[in-house]
Amino acid sequence: MAKGYLITFEGLDGSGKSTQALKLKEALSRKGYSVVLTREPGGTPLAEEIRRVILTPTTEPLVPMAEILLYAASRAQHVENLIKPALAEGKIVISDRFIDSSIAYQGYGLGWDVEVVKAVNRMAVNGLMPDLTFFIDVSVEKALERIKGRQHRAEADRIESREMLFHRKVREGFIQLSKSDSRFVRVESEEHSIESIHRDIMEILQRKLNI
Amino acid sequence: MAKGYLITFEGLDGSGKSTQALKLKEALSRKGYSVVLTREPGGTPLAEEIRRVILTPTTEPLVPMAEILLYAASRAQHVENLIKPALAEGKIVISDRFIDSSIAYQGYGLGWDVEVVKAVNRMAVNGLMPDLTFFIDVSVEKALERIKGRQHRAEADRIESREMLFHRKVREGFIQLSKSDSRFVRVESEEHSIESIHRDIMEILQRKLNI
Repeated sequence: MAKGYLITFEGLDGSGKSTQALKLKEALSRKGYSVVLTREPGGTPLAEEIRRVILTPTTEPLVPMAEILLYAASRAQHVENLIKPALAEGKIVISDRFIDSSIAYQGYGLGWDVEVVKAVNRMAVNGLMPDLTFFIDVSVEKALERIKGRQHRAEADRIESREMLFHRKVREGFIQLSKSDSRFVRVESEEHSIESIHRDIMEILQRKLNI
Repeated sequence: MAKGYLITFEGLDGSGKSTQALKLKEALSRKGYSVVLTREPGGTPLAEEIRRVILTPTTEPLVPMAEILLYAASRAQHVENLIKPALAEGKIVISDRFIDSSIAYQGYGLGWDVEVVKAVNRMAVNGLMPDLTFFIDVSVEKALERIKGRQHRAEADRIESREMLFHRKVREGFIQLSKSDSRFVRVESEEHSIESIHRDIMEILQRKLNI
């Protein structure tokens, strides 16, 4: 049986990562691979339920440590009940966000101890790390401009309503992470078309994983 | 302002710990202390919401690591939004279950690495440990006998439906924990009346915390 691969897309909302994840899924499916496209937070019914707890505004503020642990819980559920079984069947799993989003958003963005966030999440993934991670990079200005153009409940979402400075720190986090591990490929999306970025991604995939 | 204290009650369901926690609250209130009685999992609206996610049976199994992280998230919420503010006002906080329940149930009971469970929960409480912990100890047989006598949805609850062997391991966990730290007092409840145990608890409190 073919070996499964876990490929993740990371970056700011508005970076174009979800579009690229979908295009990659379609391209690999056309090439005959069995591909699962998923996303975080969420990915399974129970993980989505946890995502709902995180994102639903309430009168009681969600404390940072609880937020870190909830994202990690949702991820543990996603890893064990969706990603690992699919990889075991030799499928290619593409996840729109994974462990690095927690480190970038909760660690670098919210200012929580990056080592604590990493430690919690290492427990959550229980040894499963991506084979390849595309960090789709764009300026904060460009990302926010694209988000504002969207109509669907972006404003109500706690995460997307955080401001400029926060997004700058998150982007800096992704940049630091992408330099720290060879599984990362940083893809500059500011000045390139969707099609041109997609072609780059397909080339990198061929070179790195031979698929 | 008076210094606040955090007093926790731990033990099996059916040990009588909730009864003793309530009696302690009433006794300390009569003595003029400002007392908050709370419980885990839960304790705040958002923590209760997380408890609901943990306890509601679904078609998708809750994976052990997600369960550990969800309990920890619920605890972080409880600590920051209820316990710490009450202690800062000089109140005595009595919690029916706290960090040791996670270690006993998820670590010793479910067989997850006790050090991992401790590490996740140390992050969740963010430095806040109980001043005094009463481990109300009873045999597994007696505890289950008492639980069966209860009418309210005990059977439906995922936790209480786990079997004998599991409860034995959990009790062993509490015994180990109670030997490991001087904040613990193990109170034998099998052969003693509610009133006699309550008097013992009041004496211990006087001696240990001078309240």
